[in-house]
Amino acid sequence: MNIDEIIKEIKRGIAEIIDEERLVSLVKNYYEKGENFFVKAGFDPTAADLHLGHTVVLSKMALLQKHGAIVQFLIGDFTAQIGDPTGKSVTRKKLDKEEVLKNAKTYEEQVFKILDPSKTQIHFNSKWLNELGASGIVELTSTFSVARMLERDDFTKRFKEQSPISICEFLYPLLQGYDSVALKSDIEMGGTDQKFNLLMGRQLQRIYNCQKEQVVMMMPLLEGLDGVNKMSKSLGNYIGVTEDAKDMYAKVLSISDELMFRYYELLSEKSSSEILQMKDDIKNGSLHPKKAKENLALEITTRFHSNECALKAKEEFDKVHSAKELPSDMPSFTLEGSIWLAKAIVECKMEISTSAARRLINSNAVSINGKKVQDEQFQLENGEYILQVGKRKFAKLKVI
Amino acid sequence: MNIDEIIKEIKRGIAEIIDEERLVSLVKNYYEKGENFFVKAGFDPTAADLHLGHTVVLSKMALLQKHGAIVQFLIGDFTAQIGDPTGKSVTRKKLDKEEVLKNAKTYEEQVFKILDPSKTQIHFNSKWLNELGASGIVELTSTFSVARMLERDDFTKRFKEQSPISICEFLYPLLQGYDSVALKSDIEMGGTDQKFNLLMGRQLQRIYNCQKEQVVMMMPLLEGLDGVNKMSKSLGNYIGVTEDAKDMYAKVLSISDELMFRYYELLSEKSSSEILQMKDDIKNGSLHPKKAKENLALEITTRFHSNECALKAKEEFDKVHSAKELPSDMPSFTLEGSIWLAKAIVECKMEISTSAARRLINSNAVSINGKKVQDEQFQLENGEYILQVGKRKFAKLKVI
Repeated sequence: MNIDEIIKEIKRGIAEIIDEERLVSLVKNYYEKGENFFVKAGFDPTAADLHLGHTVVLSKMALLQKHGAIVQFLIGDFTAQIGDPTGKSVTRKKLDKEEVLKNAKTYEEQVFKILDPSKTQIHFNSKWLNELGASGIVELTSTFSVARMLERDDFTKRFKEQSPISICEFLYPLLQGYDSVALKSDIEMGGTDQKFNLLMGRQLQRIYNCQKEQVVMMMPLLEGLDGVNKMSKSLGNYIGVTEDAKDMYAKVLSISDELMFRYYELLSEKSSSEILQMKDDIKNGSLHPKKAKENLALEITTRFHSNECALKAKEEFDKVHSAKELPSDMPSFTLEGSIWLAKAIVECKMEISTSAARRLINSNAVSINGKKVQDEQFQLENGEYILQVGKRKFAKLKVI
Repeated sequence: MNIDEIIKEIKRGIAEIIDEERLVSLVKNYYEKGENFFVKAGFDPTAADLHLGHTVVLSKMALLQKHGAIVQFLIGDFTAQIGDPTGKSVTRKKLDKEEVLKNAKTYEEQVFKILDPSKTQIHFNSKWLNELGASGIVELTSTFSVARMLERDDFTKRFKEQSPISICEFLYPLLQGYDSVALKSDIEMGGTDQKFNLLMGRQLQRIYNCQKEQVVMMMPLLEGLDGVNKMSKSLGNYIGVTEDAKDMYAKVLSISDELMFRYYELLSEKSSSEILQMKDDIKNGSLHPKKAKENLALEITTRFHSNECALKAKEEFDKVHSAKELPSDMPSFTLEGSIWLAKAIVECKMEISTSAARRLINSNAVSINGKKVQDEQFQLENGEYILQVGKRKFAKLKVI
């Protein structure tokens, strides 16, 4: 690959980049002189529980590591150690050192499934922020005006709505920006919602006389499984990095074709040309979209578990879902278990009596999860099932 | 004096007092149990050059010292040690420790002419603010919202006018308030323009669980010599604490009768009943207002110099001004010296030739500062003079 191709690959899926010229020269410099460059991204130590949305940035950093980047994985433990002396806020709970270190450990386990540990530094910003001392902090606050801080979208909104903004919230962007000064970062990455804070790093590097201002690379916010809202834990539309292989695989398979392409762009290690080829193959009919989705699910599941686990997840999934194409409009039922299969068939409105149901079971016309059942005494325990009676009657059943 | 009378004397001239009840109980407690209470006032170490305006607070604290107060004279050296990393502000110059200590020394020399040194503590807030550390400062900023801070009059005004407010300016009221936490002050004094900051002390004492919130005593801003604007160096309408006795005496004598009563109220050690008596005496004609003004000038000059210096200043003043009433519209001249008196008379347009001037000197018709001069070779050295030729010709002359 030449530099142009590398840059194109790096830029894939990026929402916005500030100072692309410098990005190019950093990569060039690596290939010409072997000099590394430093890419910072900050993470919140209060919730070390990542989902795929977080891995958009991590995946891009993993790519950058292949082209000269040393990742500065920054754990913002400084503010996490600050309590709320007013006691007014219930959301801000003071973390002690032990908890921070525990969460950092959890982070490591998760991110090193994406990042190359040999090219990753873990930093805690309490180190230099505590050193800055009281006067250093006040000095830092003299670099920025109240009005400019209020230009940040969420501050503007809250200020207009008269919902209170604590003065310490004005400090956090400055502290984050100062991290780039302390680390002399060449690049900082973050989501598009972080633009204000990311630019703060540039400004402070200028004020504190760093040699050069950091490149800012903003990744789009990943859509959740619904394809509409941003992936988030509170919306429930997420795939957790620590979810088991079976769930992870199934969740990826549940997304729309359109979202699949988005995930390929932002999460897959496949090159842009491979993805283009895949799109062509789908268009000309030589590749079924479902097959492409399976490949994506396998890639992602492999990343966080193993190839073996991923294949096993696929096998299990297929056993349940893939034997036949299922209708998309199956009625759903929830029953208390354990429950006699014949009774369940009646409750699910597939037959009018248990005796009729028993006859069908005996005549080999009933299957559960695509598998025939011939035992007329069969009991359904807790779990989720697809019941099929005859060729056309389907029902989703949840036994609780 | 009983407690009521003491409180009345303490309240004399005060613009506003918050929690008078506690003030009363502090004074009572002193007289009943001999327990002292602590009165804080903050001073800026960047300009240790006091004028009478500053002494309004000091004089009240001196009075409080007679009734149980230990004064906490607070030098705000913490912020003075903070530079301006943007380099944008030319007004903010970073003070080093040596300069702060030098200015503190200068303060002591000035304030101990009013305060009782045995009942005064000198504090530097860098001590506890540095100890607070970076996280303590951030924690402090979490106690207050942006909107509430913008309620401070000058912030409101500047925000509306879109003139920039640095975020560190939001920190200063919090730091000042925290000083009251660290010192466990019982009372804080300041000018009415400091109300917002003084109340901050109460709020932070509550948040940081001090036993009680400080009483806030606000003194009015002293009018300058013009009787209209607040006394300030930049307006030139001030009497500096370190000015020499002669100037100090003369400046007090230059004020209006109305302003004289104001100065009596806010600066004099005379009791309220003595002042009332004086007013009555002036009203019924038994005391000339000028005599009352002389007494005030003597009291103030004695305070900052000595009784001897004050009397000498009065004598000199009387020599120049009091022999006759001088016209108020004398022309003024500035000449380079030393200069021959006869030539000066010509330059000041009081005669048309030096020979005519010489004749007048010889005929005993010329006086300088109210004193006849008969030496026709007399030379005027550097200084300020009132020249008089004959009965009616006057000129102010400055020889430089």
